[in-house]
Amino acid sequence: MKRSDRLVAMTTYLTEHPMELISLPFFSETYGAAKSSISEDLVIIDRMFQEDGIGYLSSISGASGGVKYIPKVSNENSEAFVGQLCTELADPNRILPGGYLYMSDVLGNPGTIRNIGRLFASHFSDLELDAIVTVATKGIPLAYAVASFLQIPVVIVRRDPKVTEGSTVSINYVSGSSRKIQTMVLSKRSLQADANVCIIDDFMKAGGTINGMKSLLNEFQANVRAIGVLAEAEDEEEERVVDNYTSLVQIKNVDDNKQEIEVTKGNYFE
Amino acid sequence: MKRSDRLVAMTTYLTEHPMELISLPFFSETYGAAKSSISEDLVIIDRMFQEDGIGYLSSISGASGGVKYIPKVSNENSEAFVGQLCTELADPNRILPGGYLYMSDVLGNPGTIRNIGRLFASHFSDLELDAIVTVATKGIPLAYAVASFLQIPVVIVRRDPKVTEGSTVSINYVSGSSRKIQTMVLSKRSLQADANVCIIDDFMKAGGTINGMKSLLNEFQANVRAIGVLAEAEDEEEERVVDNYTSLVQIKNVDDNKQEIEVTKGNYFE
Repeated sequence: MKRSDRLVAMTTYLTEHPMELISLPFFSETYGAAKSSISEDLVIIDRMFQEDGIGYLSSISGASGGVKYIPKVSNENSEAFVGQLCTELADPNRILPGGYLYMSDVLGNPGTIRNIGRLFASHFSDLELDAIVTVATKGIPLAYAVASFLQIPVVIVRRDPKVTEGSTVSINYVSGSSRKIQTMVLSKRSLQADANVCIIDDFMKAGGTINGMKSLLNEFQANVRAIGVLAEAEDEEEERVVDNYTSLVQIKNVDDNKQEIEVTKGNYFE
Repeated sequence: MKRSDRLVAMTTYLTEHPMELISLPFFSETYGAAKSSISEDLVIIDRMFQEDGIGYLSSISGASGGVKYIPKVSNENSEAFVGQLCTELADPNRILPGGYLYMSDVLGNPGTIRNIGRLFASHFSDLELDAIVTVATKGIPLAYAVASFLQIPVVIVRRDPKVTEGSTVSINYVSGSSRKIQTMVLSKRSLQADANVCIIDDFMKAGGTINGMKSLLNEFQANVRAIGVLAEAEDEEEERVVDNYTSLVQIKNVDDNKQEIEVTKGNYFE
């Protein structure tokens, strides 16, 4: 195969297999080229991924070595994307009764979701995660987007048990904002003991839901290595019960009456 | 920029922007190359996408012309993928009480989900869809996977209204299997009138849920152009109420007692 053909095929292969160690002999055999040629190809691809700000190739030498595509969004790309997201979310038409924000259209855009996933994956790529955990419903697309860049499974905590989950573990917790007792369930089959997990959700106020997930994950002997939320907002009535989280945007001063809202970059950039 | 560099950058750009018309001048300016060179690059990329079985480049000539990456999975790739999926689902350990099937692990694998999305997107790419509609919870990742290959938004029907949805339209419908009256709600802001939509879900028995979604979408003057389900299964008690759907796999003869199950290719391949 000619170099030009190989570059197209290898670029596609690498972007479809992030965080996966691919041996040079695999490329060599698949594309019928000498290892030295493949190495030269990889230098070109690595340079272009970095120029594009979508990540880099990490080389692992030795007999069991190879190359791994690490998704890493450049600062320039991530600042531009989150800046645009802030502008989009700061539209006063989004304000709903009670100071809530309509975000379903933003969360419904698969391109936006993919970019958010890429950002969190960049941030958490060296934590050796085994799974992404989220809670139904709005966190689900975000969780899959992150997971697709890390090539690890998604585990979905539900509010209600369903027959298709098999046997489940459930906990009760107090929701931060409403002070109501709520339930969360997780299928017993869904997580191995001692798994390293990252919690992903769309929105966090006091953090009662995320705290509930932490308790539930405790029942599975899982290690919560990271928490990522798209948007954080202050809760006027309750103090935050979760620390050590990463947020992409911060929603401040939602004024239902004046129809005003302020959206700034989250602690991702600190 | 050199051809080798351009090929990597253009391949990445095209796969990240499926179904989007990209003008030759855009590539020409972005990568500082003559239109004739860009055209030659596109010939190479098109050939490699076809060889890889992931789609092709469609050229639109004229002043407002350009090139569009159409995701189209080759028969070889789709048969191999669905064949493997059937084997995975036919594991008797998946059988749950009542003849249900545990599929959360399969649905939790982002690579599998992405492949399923690619298959449906291939099948529905010429329907000029405006949105993918699904119902919470299990259909959500599939819907996003399909939508990401068509670059259209996802609209999520919920079982319960939530404050963050703003004003909603709701309907009651009879669930096929349980004969219970259930509710579905959809945010008023979520769909424009006269939208062309495709319904995506994970599982269909009699089709009561999908029928309910059709009624709800009727309230939005939406045109349901296609229905795609990952798995279809027969309902012993009720006849199917939905026709004109596309399924990837068919689940047959789930025997709870004998722990036997049969999974075959769906009507996608007919």
